Amino acid sequence: MSDDARFGLLRHVRLPGPLRLDGGALLSPVEIAYETYGTLDPQGSNAILICHALTGDQHVASVHPRTGKPGWWTRLVGPGRPIDPTRHFIICSNVIGSCMGSSGPATINPATNAPWGMSFPVITIRDMVRAQALLLDHLGVGQLQAVVGGSMGGMQALSWAATFPERVRAVVAIATTARHTAQNIAFHEVGRQAVMADPRWRGGDYYGHDDPPAAGLAVARMAAHITYLSEAGLTEKFGRKLQAREAKSFGFDADFQVESYLRHQGISFVDRFDANSYLYITRAVDYFDLAEEHGGLLAGAFRQTRARFCVVSFDTDWLYPTAASRGIVQALNAAGSAVSFVELSSPYGHDAFLLEAPEMNRVIDGFLRAEP
Amino acid sequence: MSDDARFGLLRHVRLPGPLRLDGGALLSPVEIAYETYGTLDPQGSNAILICHALTGDQHVASVHPRTGKPGWWTRLVGPGRPIDPTRHFIICSNVIGSCMGSSGPATINPATNAPWGMSFPVITIRDMVRAQALLLDHLGVGQLQAVVGGSMGGMQALSWAATFPERVRAVVAIATTARHTAQNIAFHEVGRQAVMADPRWRGGDYYGHDDPPAAGLAVARMAAHITYLSEAGLTEKFGRKLQAREAKSFGFDADFQVESYLRHQGISFVDRFDANSYLYITRAVDYFDLAEEHGGLLAGAFRQTRARFCVVSFDTDWLYPTAASRGIVQALNAAGSAVSFVELSSPYGHDAFLLEAPEMNRVIDGFLRAEP
Repeated sequence: MSDDARFGLLRHVRLPGPLRLDGGALLSPVEIAYETYGTLDPQGSNAILICHALTGDQHVASVHPRTGKPGWWTRLVGPGRPIDPTRHFIICSNVIGSCMGSSGPATINPATNAPWGMSFPVITIRDMVRAQALLLDHLGVGQLQAVVGGSMGGMQALSWAATFPERVRAVVAIATTARHTAQNIAFHEVGRQAVMADPRWRGGDYYGHDDPPAAGLAVARMAAHITYLSEAGLTEKFGRKLQAREAKSFGFDADFQVESYLRHQGISFVDRFDANSYLYITRAVDYFDLAEEHGGLLAGAFRQTRARFCVVSFDTDWLYPTAASRGIVQALNAAGSAVSFVELSSPYGHDAFLLEAPEMNRVIDGFLRAEP
Repeated sequence: MSDDARFGLLRHVRLPGPLRLDGGALLSPVEIAYETYGTLDPQGSNAILICHALTGDQHVASVHPRTGKPGWWTRLVGPGRPIDPTRHFIICSNVIGSCMGSSGPATINPATNAPWGMSFPVITIRDMVRAQALLLDHLGVGQLQAVVGGSMGGMQALSWAATFPERVRAVVAIATTARHTAQNIAFHEVGRQAVMADPRWRGGDYYGHDDPPAAGLAVARMAAHITYLSEAGLTEKFGRKLQAREAKSFGFDADFQVESYLRHQGISFVDRFDANSYLYITRAVDYFDLAEEHGGLLAGAFRQTRARFCVVSFDTDWLYPTAASRGIVQALNAAGSAVSFVELSSPYGHDAFLLEAPEMNRVIDGFLRAEP
């Protein structure tokens, strides 16, 4: 089954590559599914690349073809918004390793004419960025006015400045980190083990069967989802509120609203995401350590870039807390980069960047308009 | 297969009951596996009940018959320790719902002559305490000098003072809470879903097969284990350190030490614990809300007791943080109880109470010796 058939009609390009990956493998072809909004100006100066998070996709500001839901960042991207197709040429591509049309474990390995499965090469955040650079070449975009992302998207934004310093004039890195911590890795490992523990995973070779490892993937999503929300936010939203019934059931149905909510998060996720992609992308994020790629010193990653940086954190984000953003800012200062940093207040934890965040919008709007 | 055969020779009593449970069911018989250390003095005044945590057992100060490991709290309990068999009559029983010999899903339902499985009634923390009271009756212990517990053991200790106010002279509640929060419930729900997602769980009816839902239970344990450790502790212990190999494998083996550690935690757990018991005990903990049992006001739980309280929290415990202990202390103050409260510093998060904690020992020793 082709990706186009599985995931709807996408803008999609098959580039010959080969793309040399950090792990040593050569990826060829390099398939990239993407969306663009707006028009590149004659000077080629108004391109903004949006990088999506772990389970995100290219549909940043347009309807998702499978779920029918609006784009995932229409609060920030759209007419009248800080990133505006009437002013900017906006590009958002599905990262390699993912499952919305870009090369990943569910796409066809031309050498075997079968899905890659677990023979797909392990990738890194930098590999995702390299693939995006190939797409920009294809689109005729030399330099980006800005690269913008939250969470794993923020990692890509930082990696862009480090990997292609001459191609980025500004970086917006939101709710992110320059390295995955032991606790971050631990949560991802729980998710991977949940997927792999599902007998339907079949060593990743489940595409021929109409029976994917949905139960394991749902558990993985549930565990991860807890890290996206703040303890205070969960308490405010659910507390110990029971479901519609009046009293405890003294059984194992979802008695508490938070249980029902989490189960829904798990179940709805498996409809839109591929289990193997979850393994590959969490692995890429766990491998992310921008300092390590540059001699062990984070400032080293920013020595070449002349980009301006805008770093945003949220006070209740315990996945990538403000301390992680401060580490980025200190390294940028050490490297002599221009950086503005703000910690915003929100009850919503890590997910805050995807929700209504007027202050974040103001910060990003001001930062993008301030271009020298 | 009898529990004695599965879990080694235990001190075990089969009490006729029936025990009326919070859920309405009558449990009969009530089997309790327990250990005692020391001798009850002629006045019957030196009995100390130790309550174990979620996956703990009665082997508080003696070798575990299955794992061969020393008792789980020998740092606090033993000759020359704050709780000392040369001075105290120490009792520790396996909670009902568990799998070390007390009535639980793995024991035999006399009505069917088969293991209860998921037909075992859902229990509460208070039900565990009621079963312990039956054991004390059996042992001829009228009143406890103290009831002592950490984590879920602390919940039982608090519930003892609320449920049998006349039978407890002192309560030591460590690293615990008076109610499970939405985030606490969420983590437990992930664990339960991981178990139930394992096809080997078979609706809880796996005892006849020699093939328990080990993979699901291991994932549940991994997720829970993260909550027992602090982020700082994980970083100090593991950081991003790789396994013995020199570089990343660009594969899905355990590259990082923290992955290998977590996998080990999961795998070793399934050798000593029953998956259905994990469901029942996490449910009991999620149901725990001491205020709710007493008209919605926590102070109401402590109106009857004249016990002295000692409440201990650890500064890096994010499962049951100091704020949860403060809530208990405020309610005790409101109820006019004598309470001493200390927050101790430790890098080890929730698990700190099980580790070397000289300050905790000093606090508990002083508190127990100060009896009027």
